[in-house]
Amino acid sequence: MAGYAGGGLLAQRHEQVDGVVLRRRLEALSLFGRPAGGAFADGVSRVAYSDADVAGRRYVMDLMRAAGLDTRIDPAGNIFGRRPGTDPSLPPILFGSHIDSVPSGGNFDGDLGVMGSLGAIESLTAAQVRTRHPLEMAVWSAEEGVAFGRGLAGSRIVAGEIVPADMEMVWNGLRRADGIRKLGGDPDRIMEAVRPKGAHHAYLELHIEQGGTLDKAGVAIGIVEGIVAIERFTATITGMANHAGTTPMAERQDALIAASHLTLAVREIVTAEPGRQVGTVGQIEVSPNAPNVVPGAVRQTIELRDLSPEKLARIAGAIRGRAAQIAASTKTTIQIAPLSSNKPALATSAIQDAIGRASRAAGLETARLPSAASHDAAMMALLGPMGMIFVPSVGGISHSPKELTRWEDCANGANVLREAILQVDRM
Amino acid sequence: MAGYAGGGLLAQRHEQVDGVVLRRRLEALSLFGRPAGGAFADGVSRVAYSDADVAGRRYVMDLMRAAGLDTRIDPAGNIFGRRPGTDPSLPPILFGSHIDSVPSGGNFDGDLGVMGSLGAIESLTAAQVRTRHPLEMAVWSAEEGVAFGRGLAGSRIVAGEIVPADMEMVWNGLRRADGIRKLGGDPDRIMEAVRPKGAHHAYLELHIEQGGTLDKAGVAIGIVEGIVAIERFTATITGMANHAGTTPMAERQDALIAASHLTLAVREIVTAEPGRQVGTVGQIEVSPNAPNVVPGAVRQTIELRDLSPEKLARIAGAIRGRAAQIAASTKTTIQIAPLSSNKPALATSAIQDAIGRASRAAGLETARLPSAASHDAAMMALLGPMGMIFVPSVGGISHSPKELTRWEDCANGANVLREAILQVDRM
Repeated sequence: MAGYAGGGLLAQRHEQVDGVVLRRRLEALSLFGRPAGGAFADGVSRVAYSDADVAGRRYVMDLMRAAGLDTRIDPAGNIFGRRPGTDPSLPPILFGSHIDSVPSGGNFDGDLGVMGSLGAIESLTAAQVRTRHPLEMAVWSAEEGVAFGRGLAGSRIVAGEIVPADMEMVWNGLRRADGIRKLGGDPDRIMEAVRPKGAHHAYLELHIEQGGTLDKAGVAIGIVEGIVAIERFTATITGMANHAGTTPMAERQDALIAASHLTLAVREIVTAEPGRQVGTVGQIEVSPNAPNVVPGAVRQTIELRDLSPEKLARIAGAIRGRAAQIAASTKTTIQIAPLSSNKPALATSAIQDAIGRASRAAGLETARLPSAASHDAAMMALLGPMGMIFVPSVGGISHSPKELTRWEDCANGANVLREAILQVDRM
Repeated sequence: MAGYAGGGLLAQRHEQVDGVVLRRRLEALSLFGRPAGGAFADGVSRVAYSDADVAGRRYVMDLMRAAGLDTRIDPAGNIFGRRPGTDPSLPPILFGSHIDSVPSGGNFDGDLGVMGSLGAIESLTAAQVRTRHPLEMAVWSAEEGVAFGRGLAGSRIVAGEIVPADMEMVWNGLRRADGIRKLGGDPDRIMEAVRPKGAHHAYLELHIEQGGTLDKAGVAIGIVEGIVAIERFTATITGMANHAGTTPMAERQDALIAASHLTLAVREIVTAEPGRQVGTVGQIEVSPNAPNVVPGAVRQTIELRDLSPEKLARIAGAIRGRAAQIAASTKTTIQIAPLSSNKPALATSAIQDAIGRASRAAGLETARLPSAASHDAAMMALLGPMGMIFVPSVGGISHSPKELTRWEDCANGANVLREAILQVDRM
């Protein structure tokens, strides 16, 4: 396994990211948001802005400071830790991920990228490797989109995809401003979190694949070609709440009947044409939600993903058409409103190649693939060159307590990240 | 309009329940659990064991005491108020209803029966009418079945349909014992709330119809023939939570897709044969319930109602069969477990006739009809003769903020109750 030997600096070929420490830290981080009485395998609920999120972030910041990084929280609640380079005139190489999770999520999504980034820096420091560019590690806030809010929240702000009024929106059950303040951010100075184009030399992110491609193929490292577009909508279905005993079946305006038809229609329409597109109704709220009341209102999310925005627009149109038919046949009204829209983001070819060289240097096989999951890297692609490193998810399971990446694959990913940083430093 | 002129007592023909006071009290009671900033027409959420429930009960107890009733809370949290009769050897005539509501319910369901009972007693006292039997007014606790719990809770205990271990069950988000204690009951002495058969001479309940039969027919008073059987089930659907981007449509085990099929199947099976039977999926919980996660688990209620328990058993069997097919086709498992079972309860013929005489005395037209809603009267029918008086619900709407009964119909109902008490006193 090859180390870094360029740039005229002293490099120790045997220095690598410490896989045992990486594992121990992922296990320690899993305690913040672990279900009561549970084990590592029971997953984590470290939803953004929760007490578990705040505590987990504190743990990570302490590790970053102990690694010698100059660490701070920006106004958006993102954590940054910086290590100087040899040329103060150069912008930093930025890399990182997130530690917030979906409710009942796994212990690798985001967490691996954060702990792998920290391990990469520590191993460079241990090997006395200095880079030309400063190194900057990021722990993005509120990456996961939950509770009718959209994700990539912290990186979205840094990318400038924000206006000050957004701070008043309710997000994950909190006003955005209150959530960000809880993380140590400063919503009153939110625009100061925005970075200009070219603020970083390149952005790298190590992440679990969350799909089954690498695991099925038995390939250690995925080089991401791009991140799919994601369109989210909120469907609001209004019927009439009424007594479940005294309201004859023929006279009901049952919002949950309409919602059930719509949920099945989303699946049917998405699978009606060939391709990798996916569509999901993942969240639903029923009112009044009592066994003896005909449901009067339902609100549910509809999420569509594909590399082609045109295909998504076509599918969304078909869903709207079907929703109108369902509303008419169930005596309800259905409104479908856009919730968020993430454009596709392409990974920079030169960065993809650098990750390929880094993988070869580590003796690891690679495959190029799109990312069907969204990542903070999509936002950073708006500011400069971007690349992502994937490692296998066992069985392709993610956003679940059953999410699993083998410890060896975790260490491989961190080592490729370490090597890719050095490759990119030369560019 | 005829008053009571029998029994050798001084009766004043002009004495009636005061309709203006009745309206004012229903409006005052609506404040306990009214949505913030709302009006009477915005309905009420006075869910059993909530702070609003406790406060509303205090208001009613104060009125009962002011009416001269000997008032107490039994170990089950039911409120009873007693007025002596002339013959201390006779059991009481019992009548009443409840003041707890479903979430986002209306201001007449239960409330009218409670305030009408109080008005009936007050008008008898004002008219110096004494009855042979003691009169006992009941405000039953936790009538509505919400949050995966079954209803008729207070009256069910009085009817002896309880074992001490039931106090440990979680009910409306609280342990039953804690909920009952919050109301001023005593779960440690719960069995002392049970009454023997024959404990009352008869039970009467005034209630809104909650269906549209009387309103459509333009009939003022409904004489209830019986209360339908109600079977409730919990369907637990287990799939696998997974990432909504990276999990191909063909590989999903989406519990909400299965739940949508099941919800539609319940409606389809219930409407497949002629009759008045109804079936409702009214409550649903999705886990983890996030827009970017394929739902891993769903729990939903299935409620079936009909006068014929045999028909309900047949329908439940068909639903189980369909659930097995849905589970197989969606790669999920579906378990359907009984949640509660209320037998049908027939109203006593002699009491139905007494209500008919009382209505004629008041010059009001009547219709006989079954009750598709459950009532505490179903429990009291286990202990002795039972009868129910219905008044029209505008448009048949109930368990909704739009629930409405005209003030004139409220007063009519209370007057028929008053007269029916006197009719029953003679029996």
